[in-house]
Amino acid sequence: MGIHTYFQSLTDLERIIRCPGKFKFQDHSVAEHSWKVIQYAKTLADIEEMNGVAVDWKKLYEITSSHDYGEIFIGDIKTPVKHHSMELRSMLLQVEEGMVAHFIDEHIPEEFKPMFRRQLREGKDQSVEGQILEVADKLDQIYEAFIELQLGNTEKEFIVMYRSALIKIKEIKLHCVDYFLAHILPDLVSQGVKSPIDIAQITREALAE
Amino acid sequence: MGIHTYFQSLTDLERIIRCPGKFKFQDHSVAEHSWKVIQYAKTLADIEEMNGVAVDWKKLYEITSSHDYGEIFIGDIKTPVKHHSMELRSMLLQVEEGMVAHFIDEHIPEEFKPMFRRQLREGKDQSVEGQILEVADKLDQIYEAFIELQLGNTEKEFIVMYRSALIKIKEIKLHCVDYFLAHILPDLVSQGVKSPIDIAQITREALAE
Amino acid sequence: MGIHTYFQSLTDLERIIRCPGKFKFQDHSVAEHSWKVIQYAKTLADIEEMNGVAVDWKKLYEITSSHDYGEIFIGDIKTPVKHHSMELRSMLLQVEEGMVAHFIDEHIPEEFKPMFRRQLREGKDQSVEGQILEVADKLDQIYEAFIELQLGNTEKEFIVMYRSALIKIKEIKLHCVDYFLAHILPDLVSQGVKSPIDIAQITREALAE
Amino acid sequence: MGIHTYFQSLTDLERIIRCPGKFKFQDHSVAEHSWKVIQYAKTLADIEEMNGVAVDWKKLYEITSSHDYGEIFIGDIKTPVKHHSMELRSMLLQVEEGMVAHFIDEHIPEEFKPMFRRQLREGKDQSVEGQILEVADKLDQIYEAFIELQLGNTEKEFIVMYRSALIKIKEIKLHCVDYFLAHILPDLVSQGVKSPIDIAQITREALAE
Amino acid sequence: MGIHTYFQSLTDLERIIRCPGKFKFQDHSVAEHSWKVIQYAKTLADIEEMNGVAVDWKKLYEITSSHDYGEIFIGDIKTPVKHHSMELRSMLLQVEEGMVAHFIDEHIPEEFKPMFRRQLREGKDQSVEGQILEVADKLDQIYEAFIELQLGNTEKEFIVMYRSALIKIKEIKLHCVDYFLAHILPDLVSQGVKSPIDIAQITREALAE
Amino acid sequence: MGIHTYFQSLTDLERIIRCPGKFKFQDHSVAEHSWKVIQYAKTLADIEEMNGVAVDWKKLYEITSSHDYGEIFIGDIKTPVKHHSMELRSMLLQVEEGMVAHFIDEHIPEEFKPMFRRQLREGKDQSVEGQILEVADKLDQIYEAFIELQLGNTEKEFIVMYRSALIKIKEIKLHCVDYFLAHILPDLVSQGVKSPIDIAQITREALAE
Repeated sequence: MGIHTYFQSLTDLERIIRCPGKFKFQDHSVAEHSWKVIQYAKTLADIEEMNGVAVDWKKLYEITSSHDYGEIFIGDIKTPVKHHSMELRSMLLQVEEGMVAHFIDEHIPEEFKPMFRRQLREGKDQSVEGQILEVADKLDQIYEAFIELQLGNTEKEFIVMYRSALIKIKEIKLHCVDYFLAHILPDLVSQGVKSPIDIAQITREALAE
Repeated sequence: MGIHTYFQSLTDLERIIRCPGKFKFQDHSVAEHSWKVIQYAKTLADIEEMNGVAVDWKKLYEITSSHDYGEIFIGDIKTPVKHHSMELRSMLLQVEEGMVAHFIDEHIPEEFKPMFRRQLREGKDQSVEGQILEVADKLDQIYEAFIELQLGNTEKEFIVMYRSALIKIKEIKLHCVDYFLAHILPDLVSQGVKSPIDIAQITREALAE
Repeated sequence: MGIHTYFQSLTDLERIIRCPGKFKFQDHSVAEHSWKVIQYAKTLADIEEMNGVAVDWKKLYEITSSHDYGEIFIGDIKTPVKHHSMELRSMLLQVEEGMVAHFIDEHIPEEFKPMFRRQLREGKDQSVEGQILEVADKLDQIYEAFIELQLGNTEKEFIVMYRSALIKIKEIKLHCVDYFLAHILPDLVSQGVKSPIDIAQITREALAE
Repeated sequence: MGIHTYFQSLTDLERIIRCPGKFKFQDHSVAEHSWKVIQYAKTLADIEEMNGVAVDWKKLYEITSSHDYGEIFIGDIKTPVKHHSMELRSMLLQVEEGMVAHFIDEHIPEEFKPMFRRQLREGKDQSVEGQILEVADKLDQIYEAFIELQLGNTEKEFIVMYRSALIKIKEIKLHCVDYFLAHILPDLVSQGVKSPIDIAQITREALAE
Repeated sequence: MGIHTYFQSLTDLERIIRCPGKFKFQDHSVAEHSWKVIQYAKTLADIEEMNGVAVDWKKLYEITSSHDYGEIFIGDIKTPVKHHSMELRSMLLQVEEGMVAHFIDEHIPEEFKPMFRRQLREGKDQSVEGQILEVADKLDQIYEAFIELQLGNTEKEFIVMYRSALIKIKEIKLHCVDYFLAHILPDLVSQGVKSPIDIAQITREALAE
Repeated sequence: MGIHTYFQSLTDLERIIRCPGKFKFQDHSVAEHSWKVIQYAKTLADIEEMNGVAVDWKKLYEITSSHDYGEIFIGDIKTPVKHHSMELRSMLLQVEEGMVAHFIDEHIPEEFKPMFRRQLREGKDQSVEGQILEVADKLDQIYEAFIELQLGNTEKEFIVMYRSALIKIKEIKLHCVDYFLAHILPDLVSQGVKSPIDIAQITREALAE
């Protein structure tokens, strides 16, 4: 009962694994993904501020940290299902919001209900903060897919993930996106085309030292 | 391409874990669940036959083994979501069937399409075979929940799972259900109320041997 | 006691991992392997029927689903041990059959004993169903080994597994084997020789879209 | 190189498990712990605000999300070691800060260095935000220990963890601590003393429905 | 080829899990078991020496560290199978010794063959060292079973393991066995009958501090 | 209490994973690492003996098996931290030795204290046995890193591990080191440069058999 129930529910997101079904060298729980999104967003928001854009840090904090909280109730639904049709997407969103609302009504004390409804709201809107969240979320999709491809994962899904995240990011008009495309992405790609390890050479050099 | 793509897709069900989010001492993949359902159904169907009911074994084989194949596309959607409303349930079922149909259209050679459409059809209907599948599916839910409760899992979810599966099973009019209620369930319950282990006594007895 | 004990024993096969000792990117439990064998066999049997061969579906259902049940008692014994000598192979088979028989005698109610002895019998014989089981079993060995090799596993064991399964399959005279060699195997091999991922190219294409 | 290197380093915290060595039913990575701390802090800070205390949300966001970032370099050092002596504790802190500083110097572009030094600074100080971080960090220690004890973990370590976290929290003078002691903690404790599951009773009730 | 092949083979024992099939809260690989056996044996041998018994430490080192090396070839065969009949037991032992011998013949350079044959020989004989190995091996069986029972594992198998190991140990005539029965076992048992955790009391005490 | 507490503590080393943070295809616990070090040392010591060097086998047994026991208290501290400065290294060693000493004082019966202090002493000194331990420890570092690089791990850390272990080993003046450099290392390197698997060719050959 009470806020204890909310605090205790958080751990469920450690047990919901993203991208279920496909073989992955590295599993990521929704909690881990959320933490990385918060980290990326912090840096992206700082870049916006450095370019003269005002950032509501409280809003950013709230929407980045809770952005997948609803998955406690709805799970990690596969993207092709979520996006099958506008109708289904809208219905699932309604179900998720309904379940979150129901949770708040049932467990959160009256005086905190407004606070929780604000904290657990859907964050992706057209504001700067909402856009930063969108970029950060897609950025993690890029990194998740990139490391799988780098390690030799043959599932086509990761090429699709990498590609679609990149396409989504480049459409967002933010200074941090320009910076990402100009500086961060090239570093990532050049790491991805590094030559394979030459153990014989490493051995020779070590022995010669 | 071809049946190779279908054969290769099966392994995805080894990586979709049932009941994501809640803490479990024992994880079960959809593939493992499916295998147990096939095993239960075999015994349940034999009990029907022993009671003079005719069983279409080919149909039973097909619908039990494929009964969760669609989860390759749709994942393991949490029950409260699936059953949120008749409308959403129906929509998700449509999406799943659509994705399975699309897979067959895209990958299965023409001459095998009818065979696959029949093999991967939804199996839970009012026929004896469909009812046996329903019982077997709920039976695994009982066993999954039971072992968690026996090991000390405190998640209320497992009491809900155990209870709702039991309620569903007892409504199905089959001889094997009567047998289950009269003989199998009591054995399960009596195992669940066994006294805790007395290590001191076990030690004394062993030393006295 | 009773059939409950049998139902409860099934979960043990989720905890016996195939091919213990060798490094694998993907572990497979005996339960997961069994489910895949059942799936392959369904398709292989349909291909036989399409070619005019009669299939006893009840028998196929029984022998495919139970084909590794005995490993609950005997574990997954490494192939080089099982096949060390005809004498040891025969002795281990006897032990396994003896343990299964003992389990039935001890736990299964009298009226079901004949049913269980039939359900849990050794399935690989010269019948069409027995041959289909053999093909399906070896098919899973091919897929298990193939995916390891594709992901870069350096254990020679997987080349041995792949090769010996292929050799065994091609000796079996069934229509589904002809189909496998003519259509499924070439698709598998061509997937295995695909070129490595070019992240730079994928990136360029996405940015150009 | 560049911010890419920083973004890519985050995933290491998914592979550093807290409390290594002791048996745990539930493992938690530092990334997962960090996400929960961010979530608790959000609610705790809102409670402070509701009681008229001003909160610097940007600062709170920065110090909660990065609070264990240094463990990428230093790992999760066991508490008895960290607190062995003031001298060692101070030295380890120096090493950690030095490694973080070195990382920034080596990888972060010049124009972002000040931003990163501020973002990755040590957060636990006497400010409201620093105190909230301390409470949130200890709160996760309480929840981690509590769930282990509830599930029957016999390691004394978890009693020590639970107790010492509680003692630390009650010394901090914040409104959210008062709220925690008055409302959240009692709910947690009453959940901890619930009676064990009575499967026989649950079964009877379900069958009677 | 060469000793490199032997050194590289060792890691396989990290992937063979003891007691496959039964549910365990804690898995132990054969490598981990072997390390603990070596540790126990060291202490047991010191107790023998303190009681005036001469110990061949080189022999003890060799037989304890290699005592399960053969499982690389033969796997961890379930005890009921190994002990099914004297005949099977003897045959499996022969197969294991044969495979080890074959490995040495094939991979170990000529000048080291005698050394390896001595190092990898079967150690359990009637010598003091062989008996100490037997005690240490059974001691780990006791500890493995004890911790499972303490954590609430309901598998009867662990009572059987605990009991049979105790019975075997007490039959061995060594000073360290007397010490074990008089001092170590009582400490283990008294830990096993400790009362369950009282979270409410721990909380009250901490708050009162 | 007593030696039981020591025996029971050993299992903690099964849960401390080496090299935390970096992605690894294969995890190794400290217990597993210790067992391999004991195995390598046995062979290395035999090579010394074959070259006329006297080996104190009891000392070797003691120092190899306990060489990481202190990590139960201190965990697996990352190498860059341990070696940050002579001062910190020395302090951490003191803490570790202090904790081991404290453990002995608190739990080991009076008559065994000298034995345990000798058994759990730091082993790496200038004696032949101490040097063999150093070589064996670094040898495992080479194998751990080698297999990761062979499987395609892109973490630079493993090149660093491989290289630094090799450099350390070649500085040690022992016959077994000469043998390693002349025979074992070349075998390892030549395995590392093997060509990738050609599935098409393997398939053709199998079908032709």
